Amino acid sequence: MTTIFDAPEEFATTALAGFSSIYARNVRLVKGGVVRSTKVPKGKVAVVVGGGSGHYPAFAGYVGPGMADAAVAGDVFASPSTAAVARVCRVADQGGGVLLGFGNYAGDVLNFGVAAERLRAEGIDVRIVPVTDDVASASAETPAKRRGIAGDLVVFKVAGAAAEAGLNLDEVERVTRLANDRTVSFGVAFGGCTLPGAKGPLFTVPKGEMALGLGIHGEPGIREEKMVSATEFAKLLVGKLLAERPADVRKVAPLLNGLGSTKYEELFVLWVAIEKELKAAGLEIVDPECGEFVTSLDMQGCSLTLMWLNDELETYWRAACDAPALRKGAIIATEPATDTLKDDEDAISFAAASETSRQSGACIARLIGEMAEALKQAEDELGRIDAFAGDGDHGQGMRRGSAAANDAAKAAVEAGAGAASVLAVAGDAWADRAGGTSGAIWGLLLRAWSNAFNDDAAPTDAAIVDGARRALDGVTRLGRARVGDKTLVDALVPFVETLERAFAAGKPLIEAWQAAAKAATEAAEATSSLTPKLGRARPLAEKSIGHPDAGAVSLALTARVAAGVLAQAAKA
Amino acid sequence: MTTIFDAPEEFATTALAGFSSIYARNVRLVKGGVVRSTKVPKGKVAVVVGGGSGHYPAFAGYVGPGMADAAVAGDVFASPSTAAVARVCRVADQGGGVLLGFGNYAGDVLNFGVAAERLRAEGIDVRIVPVTDDVASASAETPAKRRGIAGDLVVFKVAGAAAEAGLNLDEVERVTRLANDRTVSFGVAFGGCTLPGAKGPLFTVPKGEMALGLGIHGEPGIREEKMVSATEFAKLLVGKLLAERPADVRKVAPLLNGLGSTKYEELFVLWVAIEKELKAAGLEIVDPECGEFVTSLDMQGCSLTLMWLNDELETYWRAACDAPALRKGAIIATEPATDTLKDDEDAISFAAASETSRQSGACIARLIGEMAEALKQAEDELGRIDAFAGDGDHGQGMRRGSAAANDAAKAAVEAGAGAASVLAVAGDAWADRAGGTSGAIWGLLLRAWSNAFNDDAAPTDAAIVDGARRALDGVTRLGRARVGDKTLVDALVPFVETLERAFAAGKPLIEAWQAAAKAATEAAEATSSLTPKLGRARPLAEKSIGHPDAGAVSLALTARVAAGVLAQAAKA
Repeated sequence: MTTIFDAPEEFATTALAGFSSIYARNVRLVKGGVVRSTKVPKGKVAVVVGGGSGHYPAFAGYVGPGMADAAVAGDVFASPSTAAVARVCRVADQGGGVLLGFGNYAGDVLNFGVAAERLRAEGIDVRIVPVTDDVASASAETPAKRRGIAGDLVVFKVAGAAAEAGLNLDEVERVTRLANDRTVSFGVAFGGCTLPGAKGPLFTVPKGEMALGLGIHGEPGIREEKMVSATEFAKLLVGKLLAERPADVRKVAPLLNGLGSTKYEELFVLWVAIEKELKAAGLEIVDPECGEFVTSLDMQGCSLTLMWLNDELETYWRAACDAPALRKGAIIATEPATDTLKDDEDAISFAAASETSRQSGACIARLIGEMAEALKQAEDELGRIDAFAGDGDHGQGMRRGSAAANDAAKAAVEAGAGAASVLAVAGDAWADRAGGTSGAIWGLLLRAWSNAFNDDAAPTDAAIVDGARRALDGVTRLGRARVGDKTLVDALVPFVETLERAFAAGKPLIEAWQAAAKAATEAAEATSSLTPKLGRARPLAEKSIGHPDAGAVSLALTARVAAGVLAQAAKA
Repeated sequence: MTTIFDAPEEFATTALAGFSSIYARNVRLVKGGVVRSTKVPKGKVAVVVGGGSGHYPAFAGYVGPGMADAAVAGDVFASPSTAAVARVCRVADQGGGVLLGFGNYAGDVLNFGVAAERLRAEGIDVRIVPVTDDVASASAETPAKRRGIAGDLVVFKVAGAAAEAGLNLDEVERVTRLANDRTVSFGVAFGGCTLPGAKGPLFTVPKGEMALGLGIHGEPGIREEKMVSATEFAKLLVGKLLAERPADVRKVAPLLNGLGSTKYEELFVLWVAIEKELKAAGLEIVDPECGEFVTSLDMQGCSLTLMWLNDELETYWRAACDAPALRKGAIIATEPATDTLKDDEDAISFAAASETSRQSGACIARLIGEMAEALKQAEDELGRIDAFAGDGDHGQGMRRGSAAANDAAKAAVEAGAGAASVLAVAGDAWADRAGGTSGAIWGLLLRAWSNAFNDDAAPTDAAIVDGARRALDGVTRLGRARVGDKTLVDALVPFVETLERAFAAGKPLIEAWQAAAKAATEAAEATSSLTPKLGRARPLAEKSIGHPDAGAVSLALTARVAAGVLAQAAKA
């Protein structure tokens, strides 16, 4: 709904003043509208457009070089007065006459029409072109009865380009009428908009349905249907318009327009499907536009517009323009890139490694294989524990990540990688396949650990202990969790500290590791008595009290698995 | 809510593909992001930005000359993976290193941070700048804990301009950090957004309230308050930010950002009040922006961002750029207009009129005066009749319009205007002051009638009858109503036809007019038996059955008043 306003009756006037202040480079305010704030050549045909407010960027946003010379703005969803139209036209006229464009609505037809007669009586040559693109509003046999919707942008763009090119009023009128005759739109609404100060929406659409052909002021459409997928929706929109495709048309200028609350990402998703349909129909797409061009306050919905191009219309559609709503042409001169994008999905090649480092790499790969097997076994249990505090996907993520790390480590060993490289690629693969925060943390942990190794020699015991510290530093620096936050850090800190202390006290690595794994396990179990996890999901956090953290549990588990592998390796 | 999608899990990827197709001039698609599709000089610092999807134009819309070189896109409201960040950076790097910009969220800090380490290990110099503009998310004493919201656009704009200007990586990093240190934002939500495929909104805000400081992913804000007027709202937003104004700052770059469903007109209304507050604080406003720069799907709300400018930041803020989200600089060379706008509120001067035509003009003015008096008396009754089918304002409109016509006619008589001019200006004044469709119709009716007169002589009886036909033609041509539509036309048609028939049969004008007024009155009364008015307001139309049309009734009334005036004039 419309939320921000002072007095509702001043909404349209104040909005226009704010727009004029922001876009002072393009426009200046006159009573009832805006005119260009830049010099316009004497004798140039003035393109003046307008209609009700609440449709921004229609119509004030259309003013600028290459588009309109001025725009008249009525109250919200109401035609501007005859006087306002006449006043703005008088200011905009440069002696070349005025092309007056507006949507084909009773109030606009009346006020723009009367203003045109008044101006003609004053000696200003004025031509009117009501835009009639909405195929849902009347049959193809009675095009003059059709309403104007987002086709406004397309038709006025062509009019503006023709006037900018220096055509006289007869020619600008001819080209504008041609653009209108060859422009069709079909719109759909999913939800109503709310006028400033109104208690409820102007109309509603049943939940999960779409109102086909509903007008931009809530005028009745054709019928309501169940909402469909983007692909089906694209077929519906394109199908409605292709039914009116002239026989000789091979090129089309499409405009996909959001009505307010249907957002860009949705329109881009829809565009992918529309583009496919248009190409399947053998149409070449010229300068497609996708965004908000004719809105209806916060109405939910969109429309597709197609202009059937011929050479003349294509020229004016492609021409440069510089209005708030539409800017075409280069600001900074560039050339298209000609290089082929690097494909980093290729097999990684490894630096030459020494025999001892390669043997250590194979050992690391075995260790990761054991971890992957253990995490696969523990998947359900880890998921169950995670469900108390999170979305229960920790087990899946750990299984996916460790399996990917195992594959990558094995492939690296086969490719002759040394210890550092095997551990690094395992970490990268884990992060990339596991997803989520824990995947990134595990990738970081393994890669940071690998920085203590190299590919020239087998890692020393001291390097292994140093790696653990590096892993902890990386995880706490980039992961930002501290002990007590109920994360993997709660187990990792005692693991690393115990490992370092025991090793510094002269214990063999395997014993120090076993002690560290024990400390990690105890710490993981102790997380169940900690305060709930912080975060926005408060009900989930409360549920988690008394349950251990899944990340800490899985870290302890892998530490114990590694202890076993190290013990075996020490024996061998 | 988000309505258009195929599979929800493919939403972000498909949206990015659609964006890349529409903006092929700017970008090309790589796995997980987009890079510029234009040539970039070797050695230039690459500005790579990114974060979760659902915030368009953040972040893909920031790519283009003068702004970012590439953008990484995660899933909806989720950080991109480490691998995606690293992959996009590798493609974007031109040997000058990478400035990596993202909002300060745990997932992004982790993935962009890990990717930076990975890239450094590969020999690419990477600097990271997490944006921390949201003053609501942490105190001024702990800026590093603040989240990044719409300040992203401002900080990345400066970074892009610095890189485009050829600064090296150290310098680009310094300038970007400076921009971030001097950029503050405060956001407010009025309603939640809905993720693709989700059953309900991510969060809700109580109706009529606003959630201060709520994050762009629904992170908790400071508190909820009753919604206030635009003026009060502007004070709140500006006040929150001015509290952090550095002592020496005199210039500011403001960005007023809509979150999705809070639309342009609302933002423009708010901008008027914000501009006033900023100026009152002694700040010079540089290149303000108002629109959608960091959205949250269809979230309702907005944020205000201020960058405290110094000379260096002002240079980069003003620099040309050409990205889908922001274009600065001229496409078509223009000069500011230097003329002063014509003020058409000045007194109208009339063509010289003959004495007889001036006498007729005075008679017309008297006639309009009588009509105005009669319509003033009938105001309540006309309003009551109109309320059955419309909004009950017909009486008010007719009173306002006829009073304005009376004033204008009297003034014209005093200025020496002839018959045609007096009737014409009376019509114009009626249309401009009455408002609505009936005001425009009455303006048209009187002006069209005046076209049968001139200022050289008194109108003949034949000219008066001819004028009636012209009035009918104008009203039906531009008003588009037909007999039976329950409008003024239902009374005007029998009036004109009876007048013409009786006059053609040789009756004196006054008798013909009396017969015509009688026919109009009968026809107006007969509208009560007609079918309901067409239009979208079906319940109102149904209510109108059995009640006459107010427009037809008031036409008949004025016709009878005119008959009386004509009879008096004939006697005199």
